[in-house]
This record gives sequence, structure tokens and C-alpha cells, in this order.
Amino acid sequence: ADAEAGEAAAERQAQLTKPAGSLGRLEELALWLARWQGRPDPSMERPRVAVFAGNHGIAARGVSAYPAEVTAQMVANFIDGGAAVNQLSAWVGADLRIYEMALDQPTADFTQGPAMADDDCARAMAYGMMSVEEGFDAMALGEMGIANTTSAAALCLALFGGEARDWVGRGTGVDEAGLARKVEVVEAGLAANPEARDEPFEALRRLGGYELAAITGAVMACRLARIPVVLDGFTCTAAAAVLHRLDRHALDHCLVAHRSVEPGHARLLAALGKTPLLDLDMRLGEASGAVLALGLLQAACACHNGMKTFAEAGVSGKD
Amino acid sequence: ADAEAGEAAAERQAQLTKPAGSLGRLEELALWLARWQGRPDPSMERPRVAVFAGNHGIAARGVSAYPAEVTAQMVANFIDGGAAVNQLSAWVGADLRIYEMALDQPTADFTQGPAMADDDCARAMAYGMMSVEEGFDAMALGEMGIANTTSAAALCLALFGGEARDWVGRGTGVDEAGLARKVEVVEAGLAANPEARDEPFEALRRLGGYELAAITGAVMACRLARIPVVLDGFTCTAAAAVLHRLDRHALDHCLVAHRSVEPGHARLLAALGKTPLLDLDMRLGEASGAVLALGLLQAACACHNGMKTFAEAGVSGKD
Repeated sequence: ADAEAGEAAAERQAQLTKPAGSLGRLEELALWLARWQGRPDPSMERPRVAVFAGNHGIAARGVSAYPAEVTAQMVANFIDGGAAVNQLSAWVGADLRIYEMALDQPTADFTQGPAMADDDCARAMAYGMMSVEEGFDAMALGEMGIANTTSAAALCLALFGGEARDWVGRGTGVDEAGLARKVEVVEAGLAANPEARDEPFEALRRLGGYELAAITGAVMACRLARIPVVLDGFTCTAAAAVLHRLDRHALDHCLVAHRSVEPGHARLLAALGKTPLLDLDMRLGEASGAVLALGLLQAACACHNGMKTFAEAGVSGKD
Repeated sequence: ADAEAGEAAAERQAQLTKPAGSLGRLEELALWLARWQGRPDPSMERPRVAVFAGNHGIAARGVSAYPAEVTAQMVANFIDGGAAVNQLSAWVGADLRIYEMALDQPTADFTQGPAMADDDCARAMAYGMMSVEEGFDAMALGEMGIANTTSAAALCLALFGGEARDWVGRGTGVDEAGLARKVEVVEAGLAANPEARDEPFEALRRLGGYELAAITGAVMACRLARIPVVLDGFTCTAAAAVLHRLDRHALDHCLVAHRSVEPGHARLLAALGKTPLLDLDMRLGEASGAVLALGLLQAACACHNGMKTFAEAGVSGKD
């Protein structure tokens, strides 16, 4: 991060016509963008939204309220402009890209062994990295993949410990029996992949999925390109958390958009030390929360760049 | 509210391509707008922002970190486009109006008797009512007035009881001594105006201010015109709370935008049974939080009106 740009931005914030700190997190957001964009006047004119879609072998185990074919159907809906993320991206003026990851070839069922072969996982990460291009002010990340909250729960259990039930929730809306099956599948996944506890990338390969690996890769590439990242809900944050387990500063360029209803998300946010911007009882995924947060980032930039200083406006300071 | 429009909107929500309820409060917002706008396809293309500014006799008692002339200076800044609310209104595409209320004639010092004469308070309420015009999709309300968090605290104490210190906070940033002075002024205000506890409008007249009375009037006029209202922080919500004490459904057409840092706001929200949309550590006033919330209302409308249904998109329903 560019400390000098951050300091210049902080100096400007202190002179704007408002009591110091009175715009709260909008002020923090402007300074955070300034540091990661390396400019004292942060910009949010060109945000990018990337949604990665993948299928999961464990979908066959009844862990979702929806059939696995919904992943491909929703990708078609994204491309056709009919999903929530399309409307939200249009609202915020973001460039939306959909990345479909071999939906006809789901990962292997991780209750029987690793979800992905070494080279498949590496390829998925590289695919995510390549989605990152120069010239964007921020990147909102999200995912689509029937059964992927179960994958995210297993990944979190491997990365952060606890019990399977700590990380499992209703996802798209499973009933009590579905919730019990999710717990069983997560436990079976860890039992079949004890190596997942040893090393974060091994956890991603064994328990994650193609769209999760792509998000992990995109988060890394954004760090290298100095592009601030907005993470979405539970599955997206879990994919990024792989990097946090390797280096606790690896997600300093990432903001978590919102607190998902999925109960594992609050626990994961605590583990990462991240306070989400929004708490609107959302649990849709597909970057929907992240794109909403892009709007708040725009508002933060508008205030930071457009407000007059006390001197410019001729407003008296504190008594 | 129009129950039929609300039901039609709810029927549409249930068919959109997402798990039911997964957009959380964005779904609630769309249905709330539908009910109050009386249309199944709520609109947020034409939001209005109204900021009322007034001065307070108690400002001379050292209850603010800023001198009283800052009210007029900030009004000049609003008109000149240099304040936070200008940038936020531009961000959301809202029509911003500033209402300056005889800034050279502050209210009387309420520690010595009523802040306003009967006809002055009535005139201020009528002024607020007249700010409401047909043809707006929603109205975001806010205020500017040095010392007005002290007025709001006294008003809340009269309306809802408790102790002065329950309702008093640091406002624009007073120190410990300033905080103690605010408590004293609030207590002296109640002692000098015992009639304020008898009747909500009398509390407004005796302890409020011109900008607060205008907000009370604007909230009433919006109800009559079926225009949904977005309330800002502590002072704005306190002005609206006068109506809640008369009829607990009087604010059903109002949404509280955010939870202010000002500690009385959380207590007031609990008394009103309102859950704010945002919690971003803001405490600026001038409708800044309300205008941010207009953005979320736009996002909610965009999803509600623009998303495809399961049938339109050919997406499978729940298993």
C-alpha cells in the first residue's frame, strides 16, 4: 500500500467541511482506496465485477435446495441480464464479467478424496488471476455454484478448526435434514482429506472448487496490481481466507462487503478481523453484496474528492 | 399504505431468480416502497432531499464544538455545492433543496422558557409541509443547526422519559466539559418547561427548533401525499418521533437510514421500533445518512423491477 498517498488523503479529509470523523466509515473507505490505488484522490469511476461459476461433486449428496443444473441456468441468466447482479452492476455502473468454469465437469466428490487434481486447482487459480486487468478502480468478487456453501464450510473447518456445525448453514434454504446432511458431508470431507488441515492451498484443492480457486487467484492478482478488492459473502470470503492463513496481511487490500445470513460468515469475519460494511440479511452470493458495497465506495470517493475545505468554503472551525 | 400494490409486489418478488428472501432487506425495501407509492413496480428515479437549517438560543450555552455562525456558513456551503450532502445527492441523482429558516433569529433559550412561540412553531411546521411536492418517489430529510443535538436530546427526554444523560452525546465533538454542559442544559430545559412532558407538539414547541418543527411537518405531509420518507440521524429522527408519540403508526411510511454514533439515536430507534439500514459510524447530519440510504432504495428497485422470474429465465426451482 502507498502510505504517502494515504497520508495525503488523510490530510485532505481533516480539512473538509464536517466535524472530523463525522462521515465515519466513508472516511476510512476513502483513505483505504487512496492507499491501495496509490493516489490521494481515490477513484471509483471504473469498478469491475467478476463472478466465477463452478460445479461441485458433492451437489449429488443433497446439500442444496436446488439441483446442480441451476448453476448453468443462472450463468445463462447472468449473460442474459436477468439476475440480481446484473441490476446491481448497472445501478453502480460497473463492468460485469461472468467466468464459467467447465460446468459440465464438476469437481470430484470430496467425501471420497480431493475435489481437484493439483493441476486443475492450479489452472483454476491462474484463470482467476487472469481475470484481473489493469485500469480498474476496484474489483468486486463473487461466485455461483450449487453446493458451494458446503465446500466453503469444509474449507473453513480445515483452515480455522472448530466443529463442522460451526461453519454450516442453510445456504439457498435447505431444511433441517439438509442441514444435517451438510454437516455429515463436511465431516466426511475432512475425514477423507486429513491433509487439508496441513496447508491452506491443500485445503483449497481438496475441499474447495473451481470458482473458489479462481477467487483465491483473483485476490492475489489484485494485490500485485494494487487493485482494491471487495469480497462478497461466505463462499467468496472463504476462498480469500486461504491467503490469510498463509499471511495475516494478505487480505489488507480486501474489504468484506456485508455480513451474510450464512452463520459461518460471522465466524469467518472474526477469524479474519474484518468488519463488514453492510448487514442487510442477504445470502444470495453472485457478488450481490459486493456490488452494493461498490456503491458506498463511490459515495465515499464523491465526498472525499468533491467536498470543499473549511478554508475554501469560509466555514469556521471548532471553537 | 396500498396493501394491494404490496401484495402484487410480493408475488413478483417470490418469482424472481433467487432463493426466496436471499436479498434480505432489499426485498423488504422494495415491498415497503410498493405499498407507500401504491404501485407494484416501485420507482426511485426521482428522489428529493430536503435539508432544513435553523439556529438555537441554547447555542450560546457552550453545547457545541462549533460557533453558531457555522449554521449560516454551512448553508452557504450547501448552496455552493461544497458539503457532503451535495456530493451524496449528486451520487444518487437526487434533487437537493436547502431550507434556511430565519437563521438571524434563533429560537429562544429553552432553559428560560419555550424555544418557540405557538405561531412560530406552527409556521415552521407549515413551512416543512410545504416543502413536500407531488411527483417525488421518496423524500430524504435532514437538518443543520448548531446546538440541535441538545435540542433533540431535550425533546426525546420529554417524549420518552429517562435521564438527560441517556439522550445526550458528543454531537459535533464536544469534550467532557461540553458533555456535562449539554446534560445541564437539557435538565434545565425540562425544568423550565414541565408542560413539555404533557403533549408531543408542546414538547416540540418548547424544546425543539425551527428545523425540527419543519421536519415534523414534512413527515406529516409526506404521509398525506403517500411519499415514502427516509429519516437521517438523531436530530431528524427525534423530530419525527413527535408524531410517533401521538400515533404509533404515524411513522410507518418512514425508514431510518442509519444508526448515528450519537448515543441517543440507538435508544430512540428502540423506542420507535425501527431498525436502521446502515451502521457506518456516521454523525454528520445534513441528511448525509438518508441520502446514502436512497442509494440502497435505488438498488432494491433495480433488482425488483429488472430481474427475471424463474419462468422467464428458464431456471429450475427448489428440489
